[in-house]
Amino acid sequence: MEPMIATELNPALTPVSFLLGTWRGEGEGQYPSIKPFRYREEIRFTHNGKPFLIYTQRTEAIDTGQPMHAEAGYMRLVGEGRVEFVIAQPIGYAEISLGRVDGRRVDVECASVGRTPTAKPVTAISRSFWMDGDTLRYELKMGMEGNAAIRHLTGTFRRSD
Amino acid sequence: MEPMIATELNPALTPVSFLLGTWRGEGEGQYPSIKPFRYREEIRFTHNGKPFLIYTQRTEAIDTGQPMHAEAGYMRLVGEGRVEFVIAQPIGYAEISLGRVDGRRVDVECASVGRTPTAKPVTAISRSFWMDGDTLRYELKMGMEGNAAIRHLTGTFRRSD
Repeated sequence: MEPMIATELNPALTPVSFLLGTWRGEGEGQYPSIKPFRYREEIRFTHNGKPFLIYTQRTEAIDTGQPMHAEAGYMRLVGEGRVEFVIAQPIGYAEISLGRVDGRRVDVECASVGRTPTAKPVTAISRSFWMDGDTLRYELKMGMEGNAAIRHLTGTFRRSD
Repeated sequence: MEPMIATELNPALTPVSFLLGTWRGEGEGQYPSIKPFRYREEIRFTHNGKPFLIYTQRTEAIDTGQPMHAEAGYMRLVGEGRVEFVIAQPIGYAEISLGRVDGRRVDVECASVGRTPTAKPVTAISRSFWMDGDTLRYELKMGMEGNAAIRHLTGTFRRSD
């Protein structure tokens, strides 16, 4: 199989085309139970001509470059600005998040978080991506054991290709 | 962020190290409601030093090379041969599948299939990967609306790197 050739963007993706590309930046994490931390991050949104963005993300330690988190999924555009975001996380989560694109901003909230038996009891996740000039900003809120989602991760990115 | 450098395999992954690499081959699909079909497929299992395999897969039409399906996820090895497989599918599924590795064979069955509002009513998925000499074989069974999973996809692969 040859590498994917350039393919015309599916018209359904026009509203989220501002996300396409590779984004690099830094983020910081916080949660009541942990010490705040910073990390380097890369986010990629690509496409293959179908009405979804292909999403991958990974973070690494700023000092050692050691891999930290990663995730992968698909952002489906299903009409009238509605977004369905399906994400797999190697810490044992399979997330269905739903929301909208509005201008250069996407907000989704989890409809379900499937968990493996050994995963932590995360029950709520919300994610926002928005453009601030040429900067992509990102926020993830998380809630454990039925509690409301509170701020966990924020990141700031510049386009790198 | 530089490309990931070669990293030592996490010892937890030794039982599934036979899956590592890029696999190319062909598969066929069937289901009571559809006409049987064939496709070209690529499966990749990589790692980053943590106790999970990074899984990506994509299929394309044999005649036109047009992309068909794709999915991405993580196969977690959590001890005593237990496997937790977390998979995102762009057709709107977020799958948690659980099972075991036994010799050069992995079998998992879904514990949950999260679905977006526009996804088809798939409620059961089971997956098997096994080595047959130097050939990797794969079978996926699927069930809709509470029915038992029946054979949907089978594929045969050779290692390409």
